[in-house]
Amino acid sequence: MPNPTAAMLVIGDEILSGRTRDANMHHLANELTHAGIDLKEVRVVSDDHDAIVAAVKALSGAYDYVFTSGGIGPTHDDITADCIAAAFGKHIDVRDDARALLQAHYDARGQELNAARLRMARIPDDATLIDNPVSTAPGFKLENVHVMAGVPSVFNAMVASVIPTLTGGAPLLSQTICIMRGEGDIAIPLRALAEEFTDLSIGSYPFQRDGVYGSNIVIRGTDGVRIDAAATQLADTLGL
Amino acid sequence: MPNPTAAMLVIGDEILSGRTRDANMHHLANELTHAGIDLKEVRVVSDDHDAIVAAVKALSGAYDYVFTSGGIGPTHDDITADCIAAAFGKHIDVRDDARALLQAHYDARGQELNAARLRMARIPDDATLIDNPVSTAPGFKLENVHVMAGVPSVFNAMVASVIPTLTGGAPLLSQTICIMRGEGDIAIPLRALAEEFTDLSIGSYPFQRDGVYGSNIVIRGTDGVRIDAAATQLADTLGL
Repeated sequence: MPNPTAAMLVIGDEILSGRTRDANMHHLANELTHAGIDLKEVRVVSDDHDAIVAAVKALSGAYDYVFTSGGIGPTHDDITADCIAAAFGKHIDVRDDARALLQAHYDARGQELNAARLRMARIPDDATLIDNPVSTAPGFKLENVHVMAGVPSVFNAMVASVIPTLTGGAPLLSQTICIMRGEGDIAIPLRALAEEFTDLSIGSYPFQRDGVYGSNIVIRGTDGVRIDAAATQLADTLGL
Repeated sequence: MPNPTAAMLVIGDEILSGRTRDANMHHLANELTHAGIDLKEVRVVSDDHDAIVAAVKALSGAYDYVFTSGGIGPTHDDITADCIAAAFGKHIDVRDDARALLQAHYDARGQELNAARLRMARIPDDATLIDNPVSTAPGFKLENVHVMAGVPSVFNAMVASVIPTLTGGAPLLSQTICIMRGEGDIAIPLRALAEEFTDLSIGSYPFQRDGVYGSNIVIRGTDGVRIDAAATQLADTLGL
């Protein structure tokens, strides 16, 4: 059975303007790979209602799981929760379970749960909350979409709590073979290898180090024995 | 007149598996911002023909400029050029102008222009070449799509040669105000500011440093005088 598929939606003008370098995509990609879930697509869109709604609909329909990052804080530019509700035609308002979490959090710190902070308790009907052990304001899951924070420490904590709830497949295994020859020198045997081992994905990533060309050959798949066989055959062919 | 819009398409299994952290998106985002071109969307897709063709068609139709990264080397997993040709219904084969560049490059190094390397001269009809000062194998532009390498040093060099050929708009200016208060404490005056300065984009980015909450407020727009006015008003309102 093929692995379940996933997509990620990163929401944030700050990524698209170059102000911030996204960190969450790389983290999620690694976690999903270990869980045996194939991340097939990532989209980054701006803090724009229509763009977010359209992307959520497209990705939710095309993949088994969707993960969003960003736009669930207390400020006016945090519109993700409302967009997710709109994408699924759900009513959204401050919800008692989320409000109770925030109330306890701010009470314990002697801070006011003001109107802005209360925005973080806006959760669509039928969504289930995602725990936020870092700063309390919860994420949520609606249909197959997991809505998480953009701040990396919070995003990572939410991913850690979500991953065990998902049905994964066979973890993706890989072997990397570093060859100190340019891609052009090894492309022909590499293609033959890929055509023989059609159950594996064989990628070639060139690099240049101190003026010398090299290639990292990455052999990926779910069957370690097959990966070993391909790696051995490549080494034999190239006389490594 | 609004600024031209742009999208980026990153092609590569290695990004989606978490093996490699993408560096090109952040670089392109900064360069486009300086050129007055609004990057509106980024997609990352795997080395899959149908996924690449679908994304190219969608982005090319929706935005003024599209930039791709990855998949134009000599190995079997480098399928971008063929996908771009398919997306626009163009014939593709080894083209004399690209072949001449590669022939000179490998002749000078005493290396053979073998069948694998010749794949890098596959250029769709009607495309114009994009110079590669780092390793010669050219990118190309077809319709509004600029096809560039995934290796960051080559990608950056190609971006540098492409940007001056584009019609830009007003560069996006920004001011960042660091406020040592949590977002929840400043969200209400911030929303009022955003509603007054509708020509500006006002973003709030929370952080935590040594256990203290703070917010970076980023005010973006094309009119420096307006940005100054908004920044001054925010500082007055918050008593900074």
